[in-house]
Amino acid sequence: MHAALENLIRKLGRLPGLGPRSARRAVLFLLKNRERLMLPLAEAMHEVASKIRACVDCGNLDITDRCSICTDTRRDRSRICVVEDVGDLWAMERAAVYRGLYHVLGGTLSALDGRGPEDLLIDRLIRRAGDAGVDEVILALSATVDGQTTAHYIGEKLTGHAVEVTRLARGMPVGGELDYLDDGTLAQALKARSKLES
Amino acid sequence: MHAALENLIRKLGRLPGLGPRSARRAVLFLLKNRERLMLPLAEAMHEVASKIRACVDCGNLDITDRCSICTDTRRDRSRICVVEDVGDLWAMERAAVYRGLYHVLGGTLSALDGRGPEDLLIDRLIRRAGDAGVDEVILALSATVDGQTTAHYIGEKLTGHAVEVTRLARGMPVGGELDYLDDGTLAQALKARSKLES
Repeated sequence: MHAALENLIRKLGRLPGLGPRSARRAVLFLLKNRERLMLPLAEAMHEVASKIRACVDCGNLDITDRCSICTDTRRDRSRICVVEDVGDLWAMERAAVYRGLYHVLGGTLSALDGRGPEDLLIDRLIRRAGDAGVDEVILALSATVDGQTTAHYIGEKLTGHAVEVTRLARGMPVGGELDYLDDGTLAQALKARSKLES
Repeated sequence: MHAALENLIRKLGRLPGLGPRSARRAVLFLLKNRERLMLPLAEAMHEVASKIRACVDCGNLDITDRCSICTDTRRDRSRICVVEDVGDLWAMERAAVYRGLYHVLGGTLSALDGRGPEDLLIDRLIRRAGDAGVDEVILALSATVDGQTTAHYIGEKLTGHAVEVTRLARGMPVGGELDYLDDGTLAQALKARSKLES
């Protein structure tokens, strides 16, 4: 195999979700669709790599210093939804159930991976939480040990600030079946039960 | 999400093995590794798209008109191993058990997908099989209906030529367990049983 092919396969194979085998298949597929996909994909990759940057306020990805969400005057500026990474922000936006601002932490605290508060954009969040007009910080972090440690840490940092700190509800996923739920979720769903709407 | 990001995610998501969700993850991963992976990957993709072409003899991919296998004088020029696509050629080369030449058909005949002999490099194979010094054509095609139809078709086209036409053996995969074998393989393995070497 020519070195240029080997090089491309090795690089593609480093993407999450692609191993050496699927990288080989992907390269053959690309070569069969050179004009329609391969060259445009290389171009798109180059464009994103050179243009896209993190918003100086919230950490969202965009081509401008301040992202289209932070500069959108129709969004509710009284709420900041804290997410771990931009993928989570995208998920919230796809759901189209939230019209406030965001704050992308860049991960969670993790004793195991040696990530401390200084590795995340927590200081910037605390500063933004003090901005005029902000009255709620919604912690939309993973329901994992690291996610909850991070939520706790931020909650403590925000005591004394004039903002309400909330977190996403725990319970049954919509469409979920009871006997597939783990015990932890079941316990939370029972504890947070609500009156049946009639 | 900025249009450049959406565009890149949509294009990446068209690769086999990557859906929209893993394409999103891949793009975030690429953005975290811009200099080390994203730009070099775009560059590698561009290089392969512009340099790599099919060998005019065997259909293998290389940067020269005739590939490094066809021009390698140390290879056994008396055998041509017929494979469906370049991925199969790579698999044979990785196994390092074959030192002859190849012929990449570009697929199999398929009534369902409407692929006839004119869509594959069969004519070129028949011509090559008549080259001086060629005395075996090994059909390394899939053990599927389409693969076997193709093998049969080529076999008939080659009757009258002074070449032996062979196919890969059927049987238990090495490391395979009997009760995981399908009935067809089991039947073939029994039929083609051989004397135990002592």
